[in-house]
Parts: sequence; structure tokens; C-alpha cells
Amino acid sequence: MAKVRLALAQTNPLVGNIDGNLADCLNVVIDAAKSGANMVLFGEMVATGYPIEDLATRKSFVAEAETAVHRLAADLLANNLGHVAVIIGHPSLIEDQSKAWAIAQNSASVLLGGKVIGRYAKHHLPNYSVFDEYRIFVPGKDLLTFEFEGIKFATLICEDIWQSGGPVAQLQTSNADVCLVLNGSPFEVDKTDKRAELVQNLAKSNNCAVAYVNLVGGQDDLVFDGDSIFVNAEGETIARAAQFASDVALVDIDSKTECRSANQASKEQLEGQVWSALVLGLRDYVSKNGFKSVVLGLSGGIDSAVCATIAADAIGAENVFGVSMPSRYSSDHSRSDADDLAERLGVHLRTEPIEAMVSAFETQLGFDGLAAENLQARMRGAILMGLSNAEGHLTLTTGNKTELAVGYSTIYGDSVGGFAPIKDVEKTLVWELAKWRNAQATDLGLVAPIPENSISKPPSAELRPDQTDQDSLPDYELLDDLLDAYIEKRLSREEIIAQGFDAATVDRIIHLVSISEWKRRQGAIGPKITGMAYGRDRRMPITNGYKR
Amino acid sequence: MAKVRLALAQTNPLVGNIDGNLADCLNVVIDAAKSGANMVLFGEMVATGYPIEDLATRKSFVAEAETAVHRLAADLLANNLGHVAVIIGHPSLIEDQSKAWAIAQNSASVLLGGKVIGRYAKHHLPNYSVFDEYRIFVPGKDLLTFEFEGIKFATLICEDIWQSGGPVAQLQTSNADVCLVLNGSPFEVDKTDKRAELVQNLAKSNNCAVAYVNLVGGQDDLVFDGDSIFVNAEGETIARAAQFASDVALVDIDSKTECRSANQASKEQLEGQVWSALVLGLRDYVSKNGFKSVVLGLSGGIDSAVCATIAADAIGAENVFGVSMPSRYSSDHSRSDADDLAERLGVHLRTEPIEAMVSAFETQLGFDGLAAENLQARMRGAILMGLSNAEGHLTLTTGNKTELAVGYSTIYGDSVGGFAPIKDVEKTLVWELAKWRNAQATDLGLVAPIPENSISKPPSAELRPDQTDQDSLPDYELLDDLLDAYIEKRLSREEIIAQGFDAATVDRIIHLVSISEWKRRQGAIGPKITGMAYGRDRRMPITNGYKR
Repeated sequence: MAKVRLALAQTNPLVGNIDGNLADCLNVVIDAAKSGANMVLFGEMVATGYPIEDLATRKSFVAEAETAVHRLAADLLANNLGHVAVIIGHPSLIEDQSKAWAIAQNSASVLLGGKVIGRYAKHHLPNYSVFDEYRIFVPGKDLLTFEFEGIKFATLICEDIWQSGGPVAQLQTSNADVCLVLNGSPFEVDKTDKRAELVQNLAKSNNCAVAYVNLVGGQDDLVFDGDSIFVNAEGETIARAAQFASDVALVDIDSKTECRSANQASKEQLEGQVWSALVLGLRDYVSKNGFKSVVLGLSGGIDSAVCATIAADAIGAENVFGVSMPSRYSSDHSRSDADDLAERLGVHLRTEPIEAMVSAFETQLGFDGLAAENLQARMRGAILMGLSNAEGHLTLTTGNKTELAVGYSTIYGDSVGGFAPIKDVEKTLVWELAKWRNAQATDLGLVAPIPENSISKPPSAELRPDQTDQDSLPDYELLDDLLDAYIEKRLSREEIIAQGFDAATVDRIIHLVSISEWKRRQGAIGPKITGMAYGRDRRMPITNGYKR
Repeated sequence: MAKVRLALAQTNPLVGNIDGNLADCLNVVIDAAKSGANMVLFGEMVATGYPIEDLATRKSFVAEAETAVHRLAADLLANNLGHVAVIIGHPSLIEDQSKAWAIAQNSASVLLGGKVIGRYAKHHLPNYSVFDEYRIFVPGKDLLTFEFEGIKFATLICEDIWQSGGPVAQLQTSNADVCLVLNGSPFEVDKTDKRAELVQNLAKSNNCAVAYVNLVGGQDDLVFDGDSIFVNAEGETIARAAQFASDVALVDIDSKTECRSANQASKEQLEGQVWSALVLGLRDYVSKNGFKSVVLGLSGGIDSAVCATIAADAIGAENVFGVSMPSRYSSDHSRSDADDLAERLGVHLRTEPIEAMVSAFETQLGFDGLAAENLQARMRGAILMGLSNAEGHLTLTTGNKTELAVGYSTIYGDSVGGFAPIKDVEKTLVWELAKWRNAQATDLGLVAPIPENSISKPPSAELRPDQTDQDSLPDYELLDDLLDAYIEKRLSREEIIAQGFDAATVDRIIHLVSISEWKRRQGAIGPKITGMAYGRDRRMPITNGYKR
């Protein structure tokens, strides 16, 4: 028997549901103790879920979270688990007048013997990308260390290990054997490798083992992917928990270098990780907001096909309601491809032509040109929202990141809905995901869900005769590269042109990005999978005279 | 002739339009010099407009702003204005790896003799309410002081004087005669009095005169109200510039106590200030985004009547296009009140019944209940957006703050539009504003714009027979008080009930606020006039299990 059997407890809390989250934690500790664990490490802010945004500025909310953590300590003792050290993340109240709105710290408490025996407050408060922690939290100052079963532990929280200085600098001289790190680190493409490297470097440079526990689950536009790891003082990864699923990994610790575990979850390749993130993000948005089903338009195109497949994977095909809404401009293949998709997936499909509604408008108002094109999309939006109101489905909007960037969509039309499954997936990746998902099915001897024709045909909004996306936009390969340079890499117009892009195209795309800001601002949320998602990641003025 | 004739230059920049903003500044300096000024103080970040949000993270943008400030110094010299000291706000690049995204400082440069002779960087970076400056700026450290014409000046920026510590603490021992403060301080009800008091206290406690220059103009959801002031070292207000208009106030300074000015703008009462803020916010959104006209639905109700009047005041009645869109449930007075309003205001009015469109949906899909009610609003939304597409108008959405709080609106229906003139005006204040605006007209012998019947009749969405708002909601006086306690004061459920509100009502309203978050997130921007506007001021999770 090792001195410490540590459970890396990777759980999926619901923001705001303090009692429910702590009940889950209690159950996890009970189960872990049955497996011999005498220490359980949870993720950042697991008591309240994460991120809590301005809930942190409501005094009653933070006070309730603190009370609940003390009650958990008592409940553990009442369950004869007073001998188990539990490290749990939660907000705590602080008397501090230095900040304008912040009344709380982002904390971790050590529970033992029915009491809170130690508390650490996060020092580095991320205030970039999607994070606003400097807005809502007061920074902590000092590293917490404590001894347990003859081993010395230190505690840090998430961003603390991504920055230098502060408590992480104190780790060097603390002589800690094991550093416990509570995290709320959202998934981004390629981030899991960065995390593992960071943790390995932290271990080696401070000569201590590191236990890194991340949250799991979808919360609005973020997907926490778990992927918790344990690294020994030599930088070797001893344990790895599942990615995109709740999991508990057990590690036996006798010293900073003598650590053993049976948990070694494998990781998927890029497309598989992205797909899992999108599925988890949608599933949790649906379930955590009390929905049972979704409705979406099926156009026969690739975007709606991929969204329907994600939805079927997330909540079951029987809970997915597709609607084909042909117009006078719809091609035959738009209908047959939608039928084919629905059949392959086993989702519901109803057909509601929009001719009668469009005609009623045209007769009375005589719209033509752009107004007439948008009208068709808006009639489809009204149908989907009507079905949502009548039948209780969450409406999904199927726009991809490339469309969103250049405003290639109709506001209050195809953009209607509460959740946008692929809003952070650029068009070229949408195609790759479709191919990957089909290949995965074929490998398993299952029906490929996405019709080959939806993948191979030229994309079209079908709002006028013989329209294709490339009437209005550059080729998607080029467009995605250009947007990557302008948005993700923040290059200037001149720098982008110097890379070989045509100046007129660059100017036109920058113009489109700029004039679409008001539409993005009114768009549905959807899972972030890149380092620069539209939404909280990129905060640009709508009124903006800068066109470079 | 005084030693220094200081021009408080309260200008209205356009965010991002660096060249245009600096051309305006040059013209202001030329005019001020003709009036004998030898020093000109501009507002915070006037070179780029304010707030620039994540434009501050684009290196090319910040570099262009710096270059343009140096060019302005050269242009001043070329115009024989090298003897005029110009203090101007702009972002500046900084080499600093301590922040994740920030590459800039919020700076003020002193231009003299064709050169930048001094620079100050803002120390206190507001990161609460609507502000995200800690996200995008690196803080400055030290007060800037400089001598000019035998008088010692110090420079601070906006939030620096609202917080203790940092450069403002250095003011005490600096022996400065005059403190120059550059501001980008948005209007809020009752804030102008707070500002004046703050500036007076700053002057008295540091025994120096204070020149406080604020920006003016609308920028997305913020309205900068100007109201620049000059206070002598004894705390007496010597000069006051106009509120809600570009203005230049001249102050003759011989010493910290010997200061004189002819500029003493008077201030309006509360309703007048709010009205002016709403008018300026709308006017600048329209003009700065290149629109010439607006379209909005006129229901005969108070909200649309007030919005139409604000629009007529902002851009002229001839540029306001009202649409009456009666349904089978519309009362006779809804049409006659809309007609009456249009006639009083002189705005355009067309009538587009929605019966044909609603029937087309009903025949095909058979919606009833909530779906049928929302459908009517969505048909109206589609008409307004169609007219916007066809004729180039900006669509205004007429919802008030109270509706927005409890979600009493149809998303993609009456909520469609790019700008929401009264989104931060609670319902009870909407009525007060209507009465104030009518009384103001009557006092001047003009036609009262808003029909008395629109003010006095019970509010109704008219989406089913004999519906009134109070079928679904508490009386608006009570509701606004309850929302003030919950949202503005952030009181807990228990604290609100302790104030005498009925527990079931409190629970119901908190529930409605919570489930409407997704709709608010997709809502149009509109001018903030309170300390807690929906939008950047209040950032709450959509997925949220906390219902207290």
C-alpha cells in the first residue's frame, strides 16, 4: 500500500448548481475511497462550475459556495471519510477594496477531518482570450503547502502555471514533493500537447511531481476536455485520464519519483478530438439547459449535414428533428441529399416548402435582389423557431466560422437558433470532419452518415438560380488561409499582401469582416475549438473606421 | 494676456479613423490658436477614438496611431503652431512580456515645437462594468510633469483619478500647478455630479487646478457626454463645456488660483440629459456607420412612439420611416395612434398588414399558442428587415430595459434591428421621458410629438385578443423596483423578499431574467445610460443553474 493513493477527479459540474455539484463531488470521494484513495483532487471552481462570470460579483452566490464547501467537509466526516484529504476549487469571499467590482477569490480548499485545513487563492488571473478573471477576482499571494502522510504537497490553480512569478516561483524553494494543480482549461486544437509539455517542464524544473486535474464538459461556448495527467518529478507522465468524459484516475505515490498508475487513456487524432469537443459541447448545452431535442434545417449541404450528425452523436438520432425547406431555387439534389442524410442518420425529417410564405411577401411588398434572397432565409428561420416554440426543441444554427467571418448568412434567417455547433469550425475543416466521420463509420462497418454528394458538390445558398458560394467569395482554401492571417495571426493588410495574397481580395475580405461585426454580435454561441473564436475571444467595435 | 490660455477641446472622434480624428484635432488647434490659446488639451485616446477594444491588440493599428501623433506634431509646426502645447490621447506600443495579449499602453503625449516632448501612460486600467482595459493595455507607472510658460503641469488619464495610489498619489508631492486629465467617461444618470465632485476634491486635496476634458459622442453602446470642466486649486469650477456636443472652452491661467473663463455651459435636468444621451447615441451610430435613415415598426404603443421621436430628433423626421403592421388582433387605436404620431412628428408612415403572411404559415403549419404569437412578431421583423435590405435603412428595435430583463419580446421578431435606442431605459422611465418631451415641446409652443393616448393606455403586445402586458407581468412600477434590487443592487432573493416583495413574484421574475439570457445575448446594442446596462456591463452565463 502506497502512502497516498491520489484520485484525479475529473468531473462535469453545472455552473451555478452548487448543491448538485457538491453532491457529485461527495459521491466521487465515496467511490474513490472504496478504491483505496486517501486523497482526491478536483478541478478549478468545481463547486460552482466554471466560468461563473459576473455571478462572482453576487455576494450571496459566493457566500453560498463557501458554506457548501464547509458542509461538504462535514458530510465527508459523517460518511467516515474524515481521513481522506479532498482538494476542491470554489470562489471565496474577500474583504478587499482594491478592486471596483471583485469581492471574491478563485480558491482551492483542502478538506480533512471534517474541516477546511488550508486554502489557496489563484494568483495569476487570466484576462485575455475568453477569460475575464481580473474583472471578477482579487488575486491571491502565496503558495499553499501542507504535509499529508509524510509527503509535502503544494497547491496552484490553472493560469498560475502558465505565467512566471507569484506562487509558482515559490514552488522552487518550497521542497514540495507533489504539486496539485486545479484547472478549468478549455479545449483548443493542439492545446493538450502544450499542457502536457508545460506540466512536464513544471515537474522537472521544480523537482516535484505534478497532479494536473482539469474539468470536463460544455459550458456555453467553452468545452473542457478533461485529459488530466500525473507527471513524476522526472517529467514522466504516469497517468492520463480520459479526454471529453468524466473520469477518475488513481495514482499511488510513495515519493516524488515513486509513483504508479494503471490509468493511461489514449488520445484521438485531431479530427477525432474536434469532433468529440463539438459533440460534448452540444450535448451539455442541450442537457444543462433542460432541452430534450433539437431542430435544424437540412439543406442537403455540408454544414447542415455535419451539424445533424454531431447532434445525432450527442443526443441520439431520435431526438434530432430535421426540416427540409425547399424554395423555387432549390435544386433536386438539395432535397434528395437531405432525404439521404436523414435516412443514413435515422433522424426525423419533415418537408416544409417556403413558396406560400415567400409569395405572400412578394405579392404585398414586391421584394427583389438581396431583400428577396434574405426573405427566403427568414421564412426558414420563422419555420424553425415556430417548430421550436410549438414542440420545445432547441434550434440549431448551422453556420460555419468562415461564413461568420465574412457575414455570408442572413441575420434572423439561417442564423436563428440558440446554439451554433460549428461556429468555430472553418469551412475547409467542416469538409475534413465530414470525411473523417464517414471514414470512422466505414472502418466500424457502419453506414457513413454524410452523403458523398453533400461533401463533393459545390457549396451554394440556393437563394437565386444557379448560385454558388464562389460567386461572392474566393475559393474556401484561399479564404480560410487569408482569414487565418488576418484574424488568428492579426497580421496587417500589408503583411498579408506580402504573403502573396491579391490586394483587392484582401481589402474586400477585411471590409466584409468589418461590416459583419454587428451580425456576429447577435449570433448564437457555439463551442470554441480554436485560439480565436468569434465571441468573447475577439472583441471588436461595431462602429469602426479602421479597415486594415 | 494670461501666461497660458488653455483650450479644453471636447471632440467627437470615430473609433479606428486615425487620420480623420487627427485632422479634426489639427483644425481644433488652428481655431483655438486664432482665439489666442497656447495650450490645447484633448480627451482620452482621441487619436483612435475610444474604446478601441481588441483593436489595441493589432500591432499595425497601434503603430499607425503612434506615427500619426508624430505627424500631427510636424503638421502643427508646419502651420506655425509650434508654440502651442498640445496634449493628446492615443495608444502607444510597449515591449512588455508581462501580459498575455496586451502590446499597448493608454497614453497621452505632449506635443510642442514639432516634437513629442513628454508621454504619460495610464496607470489604473478599469476592468469592470463595460471596461476591459486590463485585457488590452499594460499599465503605466509614473506621473508626467512639465513646465510651460512658468506654470507646472501634471498629466493623468481618466480612471487614475477615480482610484487611489499610483500616479495620482505622486501628484501630492509634485508641486504641480495644474493637473491635466484626459477622459473617456461615458454618460450615466447622476454621473456628471460625481465627476465634478471628484475633480473638485482632487484640486483641493492636491492644491492644484484641474483641467478635465472628456470625449463627446456615441460609440456603439456608450455615449460620451463631454461636460468638460476646469476647477481652480480652491475647488471652484471656473469653466464648463457643453454636455452632449462638441465644444471648446477657453481658460486663462496665471497661477493655480488665478484662472478665468467665459465658458459656463448650463446643464439640463435628468430627463433632458437622458433624452440628449439617447439622441446623440442614435445619431452617431447612424452617421458613423454610414446610414442615412432608419426604419421601425410603429405599433401605437409608448416604446415605438418614444423611439420614433428620438430618431426624429437625432436625424430629422424626413429620415425616419415608420411602418404600421396591424394584425387581426390589433386594436383600432393601435393604428390611429401610429397615424397620429407620424403626423405629429412628420415621419414617413406606411401600413403593411401581416394577415397574408400569417395566414400562409397557419395554413401550412397550423401554429397556435406561443408559436402563433411569436409568428406575428417574426412576420413584422421580416417586413422591417426586408425594407432595410431594399431601401438601406438601419432597423431600430424598440424594446425597453424592463422587457429585455424578463424576456418579454420575440427573438427574431420585435427584437430585430441593428440598434436599440431605449434598451437601457426601464419602462417607467420611458413614460417619464414621453411626458417630459411633450412638455418641452408644449413649453416652446410646438406640437407635442407623442399622442396622449400612447402614454395613457395600458401597454399591450396585441398578439392575442384583449392581451395586456399585465396578464404576464407585475405592474411596471413594482417590476422596475424589483429588477433594480436584483440587477442593479445585486441583492439576493432573501434580501429582496425582506424588502417586502412577494416571494412567488420574486422567484418568477428571477426565473424569467435567467431564462432570457440567451435572448439578451443576441440582442442589438443600444446606449447605456445606467450603472448596469444589459450587454458588456452584466456578463452572465446562459447555462446557469443558479436561480437566486
